[in-house]
Amino acid sequence: MSKIAIMGYGTVGSGTVELFYKHKDKLCRTLSVDLDIKYILEIRDLPDDPYYNKMIKDINIILDDPEIKIVAEVMGGLNPAFDFVMRCLTHGKSVVTSNKELVAKKGAILLKTAAENDCNFFFEASTGGAIPIIRPLHECLAADEVYSVEGILNGTTNFILTKILSENMPYEKALKLSQELGYAEKDPTADVSGADSCRKICILASLAFGKHVYPEWVYTEGITQIKKEDAEYAKAYNSVIKLIASAKRCDNGKIAVSVRPELVCRDNQLSGVIDVFNAVTVYGEAAGELMFYGRGAGKLPTASAVVADIACAAIADGTSRTQTWEDSTDSDFIADSKSIPEAFYILAKNTGEGAIKAAFGEVLYLSRENQPPEEFAFIVPITTEIELDEKISNFGGEIVSKYVING
Amino acid sequence: MSKIAIMGYGTVGSGTVELFYKHKDKLCRTLSVDLDIKYILEIRDLPDDPYYNKMIKDINIILDDPEIKIVAEVMGGLNPAFDFVMRCLTHGKSVVTSNKELVAKKGAILLKTAAENDCNFFFEASTGGAIPIIRPLHECLAADEVYSVEGILNGTTNFILTKILSENMPYEKALKLSQELGYAEKDPTADVSGADSCRKICILASLAFGKHVYPEWVYTEGITQIKKEDAEYAKAYNSVIKLIASAKRCDNGKIAVSVRPELVCRDNQLSGVIDVFNAVTVYGEAAGELMFYGRGAGKLPTASAVVADIACAAIADGTSRTQTWEDSTDSDFIADSKSIPEAFYILAKNTGEGAIKAAFGEVLYLSRENQPPEEFAFIVPITTEIELDEKISNFGGEIVSKYVING
Repeated sequence: MSKIAIMGYGTVGSGTVELFYKHKDKLCRTLSVDLDIKYILEIRDLPDDPYYNKMIKDINIILDDPEIKIVAEVMGGLNPAFDFVMRCLTHGKSVVTSNKELVAKKGAILLKTAAENDCNFFFEASTGGAIPIIRPLHECLAADEVYSVEGILNGTTNFILTKILSENMPYEKALKLSQELGYAEKDPTADVSGADSCRKICILASLAFGKHVYPEWVYTEGITQIKKEDAEYAKAYNSVIKLIASAKRCDNGKIAVSVRPELVCRDNQLSGVIDVFNAVTVYGEAAGELMFYGRGAGKLPTASAVVADIACAAIADGTSRTQTWEDSTDSDFIADSKSIPEAFYILAKNTGEGAIKAAFGEVLYLSRENQPPEEFAFIVPITTEIELDEKISNFGGEIVSKYVING
Repeated sequence: MSKIAIMGYGTVGSGTVELFYKHKDKLCRTLSVDLDIKYILEIRDLPDDPYYNKMIKDINIILDDPEIKIVAEVMGGLNPAFDFVMRCLTHGKSVVTSNKELVAKKGAILLKTAAENDCNFFFEASTGGAIPIIRPLHECLAADEVYSVEGILNGTTNFILTKILSENMPYEKALKLSQELGYAEKDPTADVSGADSCRKICILASLAFGKHVYPEWVYTEGITQIKKEDAEYAKAYNSVIKLIASAKRCDNGKIAVSVRPELVCRDNQLSGVIDVFNAVTVYGEAAGELMFYGRGAGKLPTASAVVADIACAAIADGTSRTQTWEDSTDSDFIADSKSIPEAFYILAKNTGEGAIKAAFGEVLYLSRENQPPEEFAFIVPITTEIELDEKISNFGGEIVSKYVING
């Protein structure tokens, strides 16, 4: 008999409990393990909840109960999640989590602690919601070399960008709509600033390349500056604007990691990912291009990944040897994103073709309906952003937008 | 020390050996297991091969060697593969395979034999090449109920259909091109008849729904009858023709399984899968829509899945409790595909709108450039194929094509 404790009873926590009991019989039969939820750690008093009799407020009850073999941390945030998870692991209890901030900022130390205590720290639900990406990345690609991991990792921003593109909706209106539909939080900063995508690409990059990539090392740009004009010009270039989180191995062996809006060309699979859906593409040396697609958030999609991790923890034989990475003490292995050669889209105002040619050389002009005469959108051929920024500093016109082209 | 034997040294076999030695050090370090290939079972004499010293011709050498813990079967076909794999499993050696015919026809007995001998029978490479789909399906979706599994599972036919659609190429010419490019075999029957896709959907359906679905129970139709006119009319309906392999749970609990060309609407993710790429969509009750996309065939993509299975077998603790299904003694649980309500596309000749209305009621007409006056393409609203066939039998005109609409 393995007993489970759930820490946190918000959206994901209650979804986890609901889904576990829905599939409990099938799970126990398939896994040949007797599983049950014994405790739910929750600070609120919820006497009307059907699981009220399992609710506790003291983490020590979980830590001191030898029956508890698996703990699901679905509180979110670093505090007190990090402290609680560390204490569970040092007590030899496997932890599964949906908490991307925890994994992105503390993954290496938590994985090390799990290994030292012969238990597991699993986090399939932390990235891509229901999409199986963590386990395929480390298990199925064990015999391959990963060149890049790239994706649309935040559903809220993808919904907003879809509305800007397909309905020509201004950014502020699209954001408001996504709040009304319950996709964006009241304070949408973590989504629209790119911070949420940054945490997720840190997790994927750490797993794919074997060393912890910390969020503060990642060039991160959100979607708050995107104009609907940009979406129109992108269309003229047969592409769409997407918030792309990316980690790539460079020729010099370093890893380039970034989160930023990019013009994604229509023949790239990511260009077709709309609304709140997420997708991750992985390029492996042997496997070639792979893509994983699905709902990146939501109560039951995320809970399905948490319960699947509980199932894996229940039948695991000691610490996973593949779902792990080393800590990194400095960012020497992270490349400067601005030093990678790329093509760029630029939207400029108050200038002319002569000044543009003088600053950027030959460019490809794009056009849109009702384009004002003083507005110019164009593609600068492959260059580094360092070189481009130098050209921009010598350019007299006003730069409104500047985005990388993702071919 | 776990020693490996490779049975078969064709395209996938030699790719497996190549990839294994390329990543051997990383694999052994990551898995903390000492792995090496000891034998390659191959009927040909290949004295110039760098691995000639490992080559043997007698299966008994593998069976009698207690050092051999893992065998990769990459010969293909049922004979002698089934006999060899059975003997390996009864000797307690885990087997990994890329052989879809073997798994589709003999999966249940091989899984049972593996369980009885406390070893594993893995087959990630049998379906979708490099795409991780077998392991995600049974591991990550353990806590979900799968409604449907549907996909483009044959790269050759998808290449041919892409050429017909995008370059208006006739079927025969597209087939010839795919043979020249090495995608289709000299005898392309297994691909173009749908038999290859049928085997793969049997594997996915068996895993998703827990009971062995045998190929002879699956309604299977190939692409040899598709006209380029069909592709043009599909375009007018904002859809593309794809060979879709599908397994769905019906309202009555039965499973509908089919392989057939379908008109896939543009907002379905599968519509964008072109050339030799494969993709599988999975609908889970909790997870919602998921898609897995990548190269479904090829030497290194397939080998990467074989070596990943070798890695999993090397660190497995006894028989997998989730990657398995029960045998089925009859097809009672398989629904008649013709009894499922669907919308249909029909191409008819030598008829008129009056006769069409009399036979099919109100339909939606499609048009194409240079459409001859006696040619009619139209969409029949949702009905079962049984009912539709009855209407067709009372219809005076000539039916050229009839395909299901996949919305």
